[in-house]
Amino acid sequence: MAAQDRPLVHHREKSETEFARIGAFSDGVFAIAITLLVLALEIPENVDLGEAIRDRGAEFFAYFLSFAVVGRFWMDHHRFFGSVARYDSKLVAINLLHLSFVALLPFTSEVLGEYDNDSVAVAMYGANLTLASATFLAVVVYAFREGLVRDEAAPFEARFAGVANLAVVGVFAVSVPLAFLSPTIATISWISLFFLGDRVADRVTGIRAPR
Amino acid sequence: MAAQDRPLVHHREKSETEFARIGAFSDGVFAIAITLLVLALEIPENVDLGEAIRDRGAEFFAYFLSFAVVGRFWMDHHRFFGSVARYDSKLVAINLLHLSFVALLPFTSEVLGEYDNDSVAVAMYGANLTLASATFLAVVVYAFREGLVRDEAAPFEARFAGVANLAVVGVFAVSVPLAFLSPTIATISWISLFFLGDRVADRVTGIRAPR
Amino acid sequence: MAAQDRPLVHHREKSETEFARIGAFSDGVFAIAITLLVLALEIPENVDLGEAIRDRGAEFFAYFLSFAVVGRFWMDHHRFFGSVARYDSKLVAINLLHLSFVALLPFTSEVLGEYDNDSVAVAMYGANLTLASATFLAVVVYAFREGLVRDEAAPFEARFAGVANLAVVGVFAVSVPLAFLSPTIATISWISLFFLGDRVADRVTGIRAPR
Amino acid sequence: MAAQDRPLVHHREKSETEFARIGAFSDGVFAIAITLLVLALEIPENVDLGEAIRDRGAEFFAYFLSFAVVGRFWMDHHRFFGSVARYDSKLVAINLLHLSFVALLPFTSEVLGEYDNDSVAVAMYGANLTLASATFLAVVVYAFREGLVRDEAAPFEARFAGVANLAVVGVFAVSVPLAFLSPTIATISWISLFFLGDRVADRVTGIRAPR
Repeated sequence: MAAQDRPLVHHREKSETEFARIGAFSDGVFAIAITLLVLALEIPENVDLGEAIRDRGAEFFAYFLSFAVVGRFWMDHHRFFGSVARYDSKLVAINLLHLSFVALLPFTSEVLGEYDNDSVAVAMYGANLTLASATFLAVVVYAFREGLVRDEAAPFEARFAGVANLAVVGVFAVSVPLAFLSPTIATISWISLFFLGDRVADRVTGIRAPR
Repeated sequence: MAAQDRPLVHHREKSETEFARIGAFSDGVFAIAITLLVLALEIPENVDLGEAIRDRGAEFFAYFLSFAVVGRFWMDHHRFFGSVARYDSKLVAINLLHLSFVALLPFTSEVLGEYDNDSVAVAMYGANLTLASATFLAVVVYAFREGLVRDEAAPFEARFAGVANLAVVGVFAVSVPLAFLSPTIATISWISLFFLGDRVADRVTGIRAPR
Repeated sequence: MAAQDRPLVHHREKSETEFARIGAFSDGVFAIAITLLVLALEIPENVDLGEAIRDRGAEFFAYFLSFAVVGRFWMDHHRFFGSVARYDSKLVAINLLHLSFVALLPFTSEVLGEYDNDSVAVAMYGANLTLASATFLAVVVYAFREGLVRDEAAPFEARFAGVANLAVVGVFAVSVPLAFLSPTIATISWISLFFLGDRVADRVTGIRAPR
Repeated sequence: MAAQDRPLVHHREKSETEFARIGAFSDGVFAIAITLLVLALEIPENVDLGEAIRDRGAEFFAYFLSFAVVGRFWMDHHRFFGSVARYDSKLVAINLLHLSFVALLPFTSEVLGEYDNDSVAVAMYGANLTLASATFLAVVVYAFREGLVRDEAAPFEARFAGVANLAVVGVFAVSVPLAFLSPTIATISWISLFFLGDRVADRVTGIRAPR
């Protein structure tokens, strides 16, 4: 039967609409997850409003931190999928796993805001970041290994799928036990990675990533 | 009046934007339903956080199970709509019915997580899976019968719209009464179908589905 | 200044991406509103689950009714915007007003499910339907009057922007006071309109609408 | 290494899909935020429904005001991004910051509805409007300065990125302290800006903006 011999890897050019729907679906999850973060902020009725807002410093911090985190994961996803030329069902599956950890952030973020400076809350948030970045790295490594990326993206393999990115996952992973020693230092480690990660990875690999 | 004679089946090529909007709308519902699953996870303020997380094993299980379930329904939907060439308003209506059962999963999933090992919760979740997969099969069968699929997809009719798929719906349906005998076995039956369903259907029909 | 003389009506062909974004935004609101309906369904912890589900008959009814209602509004919107060739900022504004009543349905639907057979709940839901359909009619009438629709759609003006559609709005409007006499009859009037409206309008105007 | 020399500014024509995804993501956030506004409306079970609805006047007002506000921010965003020809990662980052304040509106709007006529609630809402409009102005100014807009949009620079827009931000900023003198006047100042802002800015700059 001819159908069985049909190649199971879909070329982007051939099925632009179908490919666009994977991107649209992922974008949808990112956009919804980032907008659901606001539901963690809530003020009961009939309290002193000024005081209630001042008491929610940690919740506002968690909101903006997580907005930046989901936004950053989205930017990385967006940038990388611009280089993907073909997809197969395993890529879709690993991508879904990555999305399941991104979509979990409204929960771990809400707990982080409510349980201010609690080691367990910080450790759970760090674990979420670790799993989200590890599964994204899996998407990238899989796409490069299976030759699903555009030819122009080949020079960036060492930069995007290499040791430097494993280091990012590693820093997030280390923040989990670190949270039990000092929640503050664990939090600072995420923020530093956020602002410095790209530059350090550029330096280490000697390849400047397009931003 | 000429307008009355106008064919009421819309060709994909003619109205690419309109057709894309049906896909976009469906994708939107899948993406929102999958992201709303996280709202089932909630931890009250001022409890022992470590203990509260450990107690929520069943809720995390329901989250990831349902993320995989909605993700799988989306992948099937996505893959099949890639083969649809034309649509009419009945296809849109059956598709909406399918979406109404997909969009119900955040509710039945939340109950499944909260009422761990309760036969009623497992049966309701199984009923939801049955109705979601039965209505999707209805979409597929209708599209093939009305000749709305691309010519290239014709060889797959027996595989996608045939007895093997009825069997999938059947296993979900059987899990509903089964839940009253053993919630655990009912749950295992879903997961097996999830991982083995495609392979078994390929074998039974002798047609390997594109993945 | 030349810029001042620039025509302020945007042609679809000229700015396909921008036009598509209005459709995408509207689709997004419809898709989110339809998926948020599920949040009305909630079962507290530690109750007899079987009983709790049986007690929620009215809530499930409201869920599926409203899913069909939002789905129908979306289909009408989708179908009509396929005929729109140009847009201006007033069309966008009236469209937003329409969306604000569609996006209100998760609230009025939740109240309808909770306050089963309560005249006020039924009247509020009927008022929401009235305002949503009246503002959609305003979108359609405005687009025809300002010549924003494609030429091929001209023969349908009497069908889409005429008296028959005012009658639909009228039936919804009548259901508001009717709810205080009999909530059941008011509910039946919506459902009849849902299934018979298009056929009656086809008959009255003598123009068969594309479906 | 050649990759390092690659220009880091992405042309819209070159990567239409990638560029469209930024718009789609922004649209998604706007559409979700606008639809989440409805979650602020809630009526407890077993109360006098008629009375409960009458008591919620301020909440309905906040819903429609915020729907108009988010809708307006979306229209401005939509209109401006139609003129953007290229993007870089800083534009994406400033855009994300803008979105974080748009996505915060469901929270500040809920508080505004619940804490009717409370100066703190009005001031917080005014602060949210200030930050959302200031960050949008930053997007516009950055795009013009870096030459990321289409050539046709150049004549509008003074109108979109100039002093008149700073005045809009200024009025919102003034409404924050004003809320402590009179919540009502602060609210009126937003609404006036909403209806008159564009006309005043057209007059001041002598450039009529496309609408």
